[in-house]
Amino acid sequence: MTAAIALAGRGRGRTAPNPNVGCIIVRDGIVIGRGWTQPGGRPHAEAHAMAEAGDIAGATLHVTLEPCAHASPRGPACAETIAAAKPARVAIAVQDPDPRTNGQGIARLRAAGIAVTTGVEEAAARASMAGFLTRQAKGRPHVTLKLAVSLDGRIALPDGSSRWITGPAARAHAHLERARHEMILVGRGTLEADRPRLDVRLPGLEARSPRRAVFGHGAAPEGWTALRDLSDLATLDGVDHLFVEGGAGTAAAFLEADLVDRLLLYTAPIVVGAGQSAIGDIGLADLAHAHDRWRLTDTRTLGSDRLAIYERV
Amino acid sequence: MTAAIALAGRGRGRTAPNPNVGCIIVRDGIVIGRGWTQPGGRPHAEAHAMAEAGDIAGATLHVTLEPCAHASPRGPACAETIAAAKPARVAIAVQDPDPRTNGQGIARLRAAGIAVTTGVEEAAARASMAGFLTRQAKGRPHVTLKLAVSLDGRIALPDGSSRWITGPAARAHAHLERARHEMILVGRGTLEADRPRLDVRLPGLEARSPRRAVFGHGAAPEGWTALRDLSDLATLDGVDHLFVEGGAGTAAAFLEADLVDRLLLYTAPIVVGAGQSAIGDIGLADLAHAHDRWRLTDTRTLGSDRLAIYERV
Ligand SMILES: NC(=O)c1ccc[n+]([C@@H]2O[C@H](COP(=O)([O-])OP(=O)(O)OC[C@H]3O[C@@H](n4cnc5c(N)ncnc54)[C@H](OP(=O)(O)O)[C@@H]3O)[C@@H](O)[C@H]2O)c1
Ligand SMILES: NC(=O)c1ccc[n+]([C@@H]2O[C@H](COP(=O)([O-])OP(=O)(O)OC[C@H]3O[C@@H](n4cnc5c(N)ncnc54)[C@H](OP(=O)(O)O)[C@@H]3O)[C@@H](O)[C@H]2O)c1
Repeated sequence: MTAAIALAGRGRGRTAPNPNVGCIIVRDGIVIGRGWTQPGGRPHAEAHAMAEAGDIAGATLHVTLEPCAHASPRGPACAETIAAAKPARVAIAVQDPDPRTNGQGIARLRAAGIAVTTGVEEAAARASMAGFLTRQAKGRPHVTLKLAVSLDGRIALPDGSSRWITGPAARAHAHLERARHEMILVGRGTLEADRPRLDVRLPGLEARSPRRAVFGHGAAPEGWTALRDLSDLATLDGVDHLFVEGGAGTAAAFLEADLVDRLLLYTAPIVVGAGQSAIGDIGLADLAHAHDRWRLTDTRTLGSDRLAIYERV
Repeated sequence: MTAAIALAGRGRGRTAPNPNVGCIIVRDGIVIGRGWTQPGGRPHAEAHAMAEAGDIAGATLHVTLEPCAHASPRGPACAETIAAAKPARVAIAVQDPDPRTNGQGIARLRAAGIAVTTGVEEAAARASMAGFLTRQAKGRPHVTLKLAVSLDGRIALPDGSSRWITGPAARAHAHLERARHEMILVGRGTLEADRPRLDVRLPGLEARSPRRAVFGHGAAPEGWTALRDLSDLATLDGVDHLFVEGGAGTAAAFLEADLVDRLLLYTAPIVVGAGQSAIGDIGLADLAHAHDRWRLTDTRTLGSDRLAIYERV
């Protein structure tokens, strides 16, 4: 399942509104098929893996999400196709919350005499499909907030200059993160101050630049989406992962409304002293209320900078 | 030598103006003597280890600092005593910069026919004697600045409340750090706002509470030292390790004058938003000047908080 989850990551940011799923088919200890949801959401991971494997009778199919039980104009139901191919076993990480499937895919497989295990490595699989699951549960995209700060939490000098806080390795990592989101958003203040390009400037990944959005009340630049209000989040079509890159007013608005699911904190080994802070007023009246909301899930070294990833508890 | 360096740490914060040294004596692969500089600076580590070992003829003595070549009213020169005890070998990490010894201890041992190796694990040994070495090289104590911040670099809410940012494990670690310094300093602003006790509240270490100092122009409380100016640092008697606990004005003054050797950054997994920053204006005009000054040397997890230790490059 670990390998299937890794495959699922390949589709991240390119399959909405479909989930990014991974699938591995194994027979006699040998991997005979591998698949992941293709850009645009089709083929599904299972179809992709079965096409690679050919005959899967008697094999075990590992899939990160319950196979779909609903046919669509774009393809048959995976539960149906799998049942017909007669694998001996199907291991599933997460049951599909989509009401058209929710348990019915599993039922269909069991009815065909296939041994089904569920909940396999569920936590890791859920993390890999955070966009889809957040959309299903909350009707909005999964939101990552990126901050690049000095040791003392500054994002710019008092005059606004912020080039550069972090080094090339951290910036490259942030570009890779951009490629894993369907949309990047900045506030109007940042748009006007920095005129950021917000594209993916990594060799070979230029075509993975996500859509761009500005948060505020004025008009959006040509080709950009305008997000006038946080409630507009629910209306974003084809966006299951939103990458928020600031500035302080925008970060504060998302945090105050409890709309941030994941925090990427890049810290440079520099002291800035007086300067601009990463996050504006979030209306916190008591320090006690700030605790037990965030959990450190990963850290890594990027050149001389450090990345710490926090997720909502 | 690694073991000798660990022993040296036991005296840290209690031997000034003497260095905190560690010593191990080994014969046929067996440790026959261990010593470290005792509180107040005497006995020296070598004398302590030799007293434990008894006869050391033919053994190897590992010591973190060159044995002293100068006799004092408080004891004989270690180089003399060691030469008389006739070990086969002496391994030394750091040559003593004190002009009364600087190379003469080594010469005395070699003159007695003892094989002397120098520079063994020098970097780690230097770090363990940072207080003494900073005093010798710069005529002032080694300065550690402690910051306890939120993810977004805040140390307090706008109204000043700062209890608590970090949790009990981080606070206990900071108390342990206090015990490894001869003096703790806060600014007048912090003294007046918080009336901190600045003692070591760890079971068994209560007696290790260092002297206390306040930075500013008014009078110091009973029993506290007043530091009116940064130049007063040079006059602090018996203080080779100074622990600076804030606030923002004090931290900025030390940083702007390039007087901070080590930064302890405790980061709590909370977002504060609007609030007080850890460090005031340090006169930074260009971000480029902030780079290449700090190097991350250690990180650890303390409860749900993270500690990152940075040292001057
Ligand atoms: N170093 C870094 O990593 C970094 C990253 C990003 C930004 N920055 C710096 O941050 C500065 C900009 O920060 P900022 O706080 O002024 O700007 P900002 O967050 O980029 O934009 C603020 C704008 O966001 C909109 N907004 C905020 N809350 C809202 C809400 N609840 N509903 C609707 N719209 C809302 C408003 O737009 P309207 O006025 O149109 O309503 C507001 O003016 C710039 O100097 C930039 O360089 C630095
Ligand atoms: N959460 C935490 O970890 C933490 C830690 C510490 C402090 N704090 C908070 O920080 C706030 C205090 O910060 P602050 O910046 O006002 O105070 P501060 O740094 O504690 O004290 C400022 C004072 O330091 C003296 N000073 C500064 N630069 C100097 C220089 N170059 N030469 C001589 N003296 C100098 C001045 O004293 P004179 O006016 O007497 O000249 C100045 O008023 C408090 O609210 C406290 O609670 C929080």
